[in-house]
Amino acid sequence: MAHPITPLSPPLKDELDIVIPTIRNLDFLEMWRPFLQPYHLIIVQDGDPTKVINVPDGFDYELYNRNDVNRVLGPKASCISFKDSACRCFGFLVSKKKYIFTIDDDCFVAKDPSGKEINALAQHIQNLLTPSTPLFFNTLYDPYREGADFVRGYPFSLREGVSTAISHGLWLNIPDYDAPTQLVKPRERNTRYVDAVMTIPKGTLFPMCGMNLAFDRELIGPAMYFGLMGDGQPIGRYDDMWAGWCAKVICDHLNLGVKTGLPYIWHSKASNPFVNLKKEYKGIYWQEEIIPFFQSIVLSKECTTVQECYVELSKYVKEKLGSVDPYFQKLGDAMVTWIEAWEELNPPKEAAAAAEPKSVKKEEPSPKSK
Amino acid sequence: MAHPITPLSPPLKDELDIVIPTIRNLDFLEMWRPFLQPYHLIIVQDGDPTKVINVPDGFDYELYNRNDVNRVLGPKASCISFKDSACRCFGFLVSKKKYIFTIDDDCFVAKDPSGKEINALAQHIQNLLTPSTPLFFNTLYDPYREGADFVRGYPFSLREGVSTAISHGLWLNIPDYDAPTQLVKPRERNTRYVDAVMTIPKGTLFPMCGMNLAFDRELIGPAMYFGLMGDGQPIGRYDDMWAGWCAKVICDHLNLGVKTGLPYIWHSKASNPFVNLKKEYKGIYWQEEIIPFFQSIVLSKECTTVQECYVELSKYVKEKLGSVDPYFQKLGDAMVTWIEAWEELNPPKEAAAAAEPKSVKKEEPSPKSK
Repeated sequence: MAHPITPLSPPLKDELDIVIPTIRNLDFLEMWRPFLQPYHLIIVQDGDPTKVINVPDGFDYELYNRNDVNRVLGPKASCISFKDSACRCFGFLVSKKKYIFTIDDDCFVAKDPSGKEINALAQHIQNLLTPSTPLFFNTLYDPYREGADFVRGYPFSLREGVSTAISHGLWLNIPDYDAPTQLVKPRERNTRYVDAVMTIPKGTLFPMCGMNLAFDRELIGPAMYFGLMGDGQPIGRYDDMWAGWCAKVICDHLNLGVKTGLPYIWHSKASNPFVNLKKEYKGIYWQEEIIPFFQSIVLSKECTTVQECYVELSKYVKEKLGSVDPYFQKLGDAMVTWIEAWEELNPPKEAAAAAEPKSVKKEEPSPKSK
Repeated sequence: MAHPITPLSPPLKDELDIVIPTIRNLDFLEMWRPFLQPYHLIIVQDGDPTKVINVPDGFDYELYNRNDVNRVLGPKASCISFKDSACRCFGFLVSKKKYIFTIDDDCFVAKDPSGKEINALAQHIQNLLTPSTPLFFNTLYDPYREGADFVRGYPFSLREGVSTAISHGLWLNIPDYDAPTQLVKPRERNTRYVDAVMTIPKGTLFPMCGMNLAFDRELIGPAMYFGLMGDGQPIGRYDDMWAGWCAKVICDHLNLGVKTGLPYIWHSKASNPFVNLKKEYKGIYWQEEIIPFFQSIVLSKECTTVQECYVELSKYVKEKLGSVDPYFQKLGDAMVTWIEAWEELNPPKEAAAAAEPKSVKKEEPSPKSK
């Protein structure tokens, strides 16, 4: 059942964009050069748009700052967060590729227990190109990996699996802890390399971290909205969590798979727990209501596309979470704006072809690029 | 959050029985001596009761053959399988301890990647004595392990976890494959040591293998019935699967946890795939109906004990699976007989104390023992 990928050229080279949100020079890419240089980068510059971000030579990229976001999206730019890594989802929006790999600029190449440098992207691609198994748990983990399979008692009718929409990678060194845990365990480091990829079962929510994440944009892209965080918002550091909860509920509804585990990256520095506490504290109690909300969501059968699911979800957010805080009314509206922006920049292929001759293209992205 | 166990004497020495079903001399125990000798063994001898089973010197054990099973259970002995390792559940029934570890006699001590011999029982005990987290997925696996915790976005109200009822260990070398997979991949060996323990989420079924398994008998014992297999039955090799499906549904209902992953044992020899195919083939198609059946089970709120859940489940088995094959009518009846036997041999503590003076004790186990 294993389908090892042993490509002659970098896999999915022309079908994958790497999205990086940043406020600084991208020196961290030097270490990634052997693995990432063949791919196209979409850099979303957060904060002061006048600041110049240096990108190491030899990388093919386009870079968007806040002015570009405003120009491309016009009034709809309000759905893109400012001064928060949530702005990365703008990169998902303007990409024209089938796959996305997104990584933070404080993430470096990790080594496996044999000392070999881990090509995180290659592992994500393998995760995305092999099926997921959300309907029944396989105790030997990913049955599509070399040397593994479905164990005795695994129903044969479920062994085809389902398409994989999301590949969630992990982190060695600094674990992705919340502020209270960071404060309580300042010295804890993740040194355990768990050699596994697994499907998160249907009906089970998980905390999706945006640090080291890949997904199939055609399958789940419109659900990968990182919400309203940072500048002018009452909350931060829940951008990826929000996207993960929404995306998981929609994957479950549409029979798509979500994998977690390998690949690891090396997360170099812990963010400031005091700053984080300030960003997180509302989320810490809100999530006690958000999780039961997502656990109870049943999307209607009429929702057959991610966009339809997402718009329906936005209604439930306003209806059921609006009473928790007015923020969720605003977030529900932003979710709809996001879908409008998505549809504008990503029209259905037939529609796009039909509209081509008369389209004004006034909102075509035209970023700085190399 | 980690609670490493560093005991001065063997942990749970007087609270745990090791149950071994066998048809041969127990030479395999020699390798386990450093880890298992302090514990009491319950050996269930399968097949010909006149055969003498040798147990290495120094082990404290009681041994039951088929004549003992018949004597102890009388007419209720019909619920205990003959000529099948499913007979192991008789050991669960006659134990008086809180915890059970059960292991097959072709399982040896495995080594971790550093070359250190793995004390499987110690790991099972650690799994059972720390909580499970079935309500939300933790991407860094068992949050109660040393060096790990709950990640950002994990609801704080769920971090107490729930009591762990079952610890399902894995196998290096010969993986637990069904006959078709054995036939197709005769040379496949499991060489991947995945250094993780995880909770199987609520609502997710898994294939529970009885080769290397521990559980809390007080929490889930009555659900650990291995069904009717082997001699006179139309099916084999689904004994542990059946117990796992029943137990998982009941754990979910009673808010108990099931863990899988570490510890590994070394599984020495593959069973004959042709023989296995004969035993399994009905199960291979029956399970296509059994799995949706278990996935759809909703136990009523009135069921607050494992026994009540199990009796209700037996009714559903007869009602819903009876039409698949008459075997399930018989199995449903055997499930009820098993619970009757359980209650007879394991009366509630108060009832047992009250009944003590006048009890005839006619069915008190009196096995051969050392």
